[in-house]
Amino acid sequence: MAAAPLRIGIAGLGTVGTSVVRMLADKKSELERQCGRPITTILVSARDRTRDRGIDLSQIQWVDDPVELARSPEIDVFVELIGGDNGPAMASVKAALESGKHVVTANKALLSKHGVELAQIAEENGLLLNYEAAVAGGIPVIKTLREALAGNQVSRVFGILNGTCNYILTRMEAEGMSFQECLADAQRLGYAEADPTFDIEGHDTAHKLSILTSLAFGCQISAQDIYLEGISNITPADIKAAANLGYRIKLLGVAQRTETGIEQRVHPTMVPTSSVIAQVHGVTNAVAIETDMLGELLLSGPGAGGNATASAVIGDLADIAKSRPGFQHGPVFGRPARELAPYQRARMRSHEGGYFIRLTVHDRLGVFASIASRMAENEISLESIVQHGDAAEYKTVIMVTHETTELAVRNAVERITNDGLLADKPQVIRIERAA
Amino acid sequence: MAAAPLRIGIAGLGTVGTSVVRMLADKKSELERQCGRPITTILVSARDRTRDRGIDLSQIQWVDDPVELARSPEIDVFVELIGGDNGPAMASVKAALESGKHVVTANKALLSKHGVELAQIAEENGLLLNYEAAVAGGIPVIKTLREALAGNQVSRVFGILNGTCNYILTRMEAEGMSFQECLADAQRLGYAEADPTFDIEGHDTAHKLSILTSLAFGCQISAQDIYLEGISNITPADIKAAANLGYRIKLLGVAQRTETGIEQRVHPTMVPTSSVIAQVHGVTNAVAIETDMLGELLLSGPGAGGNATASAVIGDLADIAKSRPGFQHGPVFGRPARELAPYQRARMRSHEGGYFIRLTVHDRLGVFASIASRMAENEISLESIVQHGDAAEYKTVIMVTHETTELAVRNAVERITNDGLLADKPQVIRIERAA
Repeated sequence: MAAAPLRIGIAGLGTVGTSVVRMLADKKSELERQCGRPITTILVSARDRTRDRGIDLSQIQWVDDPVELARSPEIDVFVELIGGDNGPAMASVKAALESGKHVVTANKALLSKHGVELAQIAEENGLLLNYEAAVAGGIPVIKTLREALAGNQVSRVFGILNGTCNYILTRMEAEGMSFQECLADAQRLGYAEADPTFDIEGHDTAHKLSILTSLAFGCQISAQDIYLEGISNITPADIKAAANLGYRIKLLGVAQRTETGIEQRVHPTMVPTSSVIAQVHGVTNAVAIETDMLGELLLSGPGAGGNATASAVIGDLADIAKSRPGFQHGPVFGRPARELAPYQRARMRSHEGGYFIRLTVHDRLGVFASIASRMAENEISLESIVQHGDAAEYKTVIMVTHETTELAVRNAVERITNDGLLADKPQVIRIERAA
Repeated sequence: MAAAPLRIGIAGLGTVGTSVVRMLADKKSELERQCGRPITTILVSARDRTRDRGIDLSQIQWVDDPVELARSPEIDVFVELIGGDNGPAMASVKAALESGKHVVTANKALLSKHGVELAQIAEENGLLLNYEAAVAGGIPVIKTLREALAGNQVSRVFGILNGTCNYILTRMEAEGMSFQECLADAQRLGYAEADPTFDIEGHDTAHKLSILTSLAFGCQISAQDIYLEGISNITPADIKAAANLGYRIKLLGVAQRTETGIEQRVHPTMVPTSSVIAQVHGVTNAVAIETDMLGELLLSGPGAGGNATASAVIGDLADIAKSRPGFQHGPVFGRPARELAPYQRARMRSHEGGYFIRLTVHDRLGVFASIASRMAENEISLESIVQHGDAAEYKTVIMVTHETTELAVRNAVERITNDGLLADKPQVIRIERAA
């Protein structure tokens, strides 16, 4: 006996939305076999009705207003692919949940800002709010944290969550190019936006990290509490020095449980060249999860792109299609939204770890000794110290510290700067353990 | 309002079973929060009732016969951790499903042999049969293939599925040790069994691969059709030659869709040193999945160990706890068991790929030319050919072929052997593309 189809409405027909419509049509019979009933696109909404998207919309009804679409009694699930942390995306998701529709969204900005509120509405109404596509594209990290790792206590989650940054860093390393050159190339090839700030300054990574943090630690989402540093200051000299020391530079989002709270930070990071995450090149994303029971798990794969993101949306839809009304679902962020603990921020100055410090110094007698004594004053012990540029006016001093604190490093570098020893801005890059 | 607890019975209290009982007790309140109801261990069964396992069994009832336990009306879920592809494991899982219990199992041998039959019983009775722990321990590869990749067409799935083999190969490479030395060390350290045949000859990998193949390609499980080659013939010379050529040797299980059917093969494999999977060291497992929509996804993590495996069992239990009776579940192997296609075997002789061939030859005039002509006769084009051992009685010839067929390589090597050119057994290792 054929079960009733799962009727969906899709708002937003950009790259991902178009791909979802196409894939649902192409995979119709296979999805029906897997889910026990068809998944049928009934309604769509997008800004431009006339644009040719290369998909057949003849059997699908067009609705101009996404909020009206979200409320339509003709659909069971609302798929939000509009984007943006407010406006029509927020209005339509809320309307869908309030009128009894499950929601699937790829919108990290929306969840980062309103996720807990929306989760609460979904849970109160016994609805699913699925968002696999919102973090790391096609990599099933939400399903892993929310379902597979039930009962695990997460100690750290970190990852390469922005393909644009990883593409730029990969090319800088492979070809010795400057950040600006690589960015221009990435823009030309469509891997970076005309205004790249959102990606390269780490905001996109921060949105995604904030969602992972909530899932990992059972706390409310708090993107505004994330320490943020982008990759625009990374130079070929840093990348070369990292390589010589056995490290590779990646923009990581890291969330970590500490004694004083939860650290959330996005910054260029040195990871051991021999680690699995260091081999994640180009636009590929990766997420590592450390837990008490499991140890370390790593997932890597395409973090963006129409089809990869559509794959995650369709996986979310299939989960809904396999379920039936009236059964209780797992909570949206792993724990009931009303029980998510307030986010307790660990102060960045208390962060503990190794540091890479690159200083450009005037070639004067005693510079080296002054630097060493400033480090010692702040109880920073050095794993290595190297000096370059014997014949030059300026010398480069590269230090790698043993485990120390952010505060100690900031103080030491500030003192060295005030001592007038530096001929250029100091460079400080955090080192992250990785298996 | 507190929902009724999910009542479970566990048969088998080895390392994994003990860890499951401990973790369910330790994580009681956290799991209740995540699942909306408690998961409570009601019954256990194991061979030795008197052994001290370091866990509190005082609140849990002991049942001597696992089949009786499986049928008990006091439980909702039967957890099978007995092991073995028949006997009490099969009898109890069948009894559980036939008496309306969901089943969670870590038993790859059982599923490899009877998985489709058991899935059919589960599906006819509207029950869940979950088995995340059966393949790659704590890595959520079953969930990924069964749920996250809904609608994706898989072209290839491959992985490092046996920690013992990967541990041995990792140490052979790192320390230049022989296979026998590493095996002895692994046995001493508890990473290999006293009788290691099952692991090192690839049977364990084959069981796991057969399950992944069914999930990936929607076909019946057919472990007996897997081409099988273990790692006991791998020498330090192979590992060194591989490294010089930019490869690392891993025991892979590979399932791949070809024009003539599905290839399933387990053999030592050369993967590019720069690939992510090449960085998977020691007892860690990894699985790569290639699909039409997603591209390539890689999951790596602990493939064995009490807690990591228990984590997967508990994830499976949590999924059941979050569900409620009366809703339709997704099929056990991704597609309904009755609709799984018969496994259509692609012949190994038709396998296409690159090959590494290492020959030990007598130092006679014309040997090199004879070898080259035998390769040409079989239309094998060479990417590289290197000859070592200038001053020795025997010379080593190392060839890497361009894409060719298994049949061509077998024929060429057979002819070279019959030509009487070889002073030792020829070594042939397949090369696998990996990102």
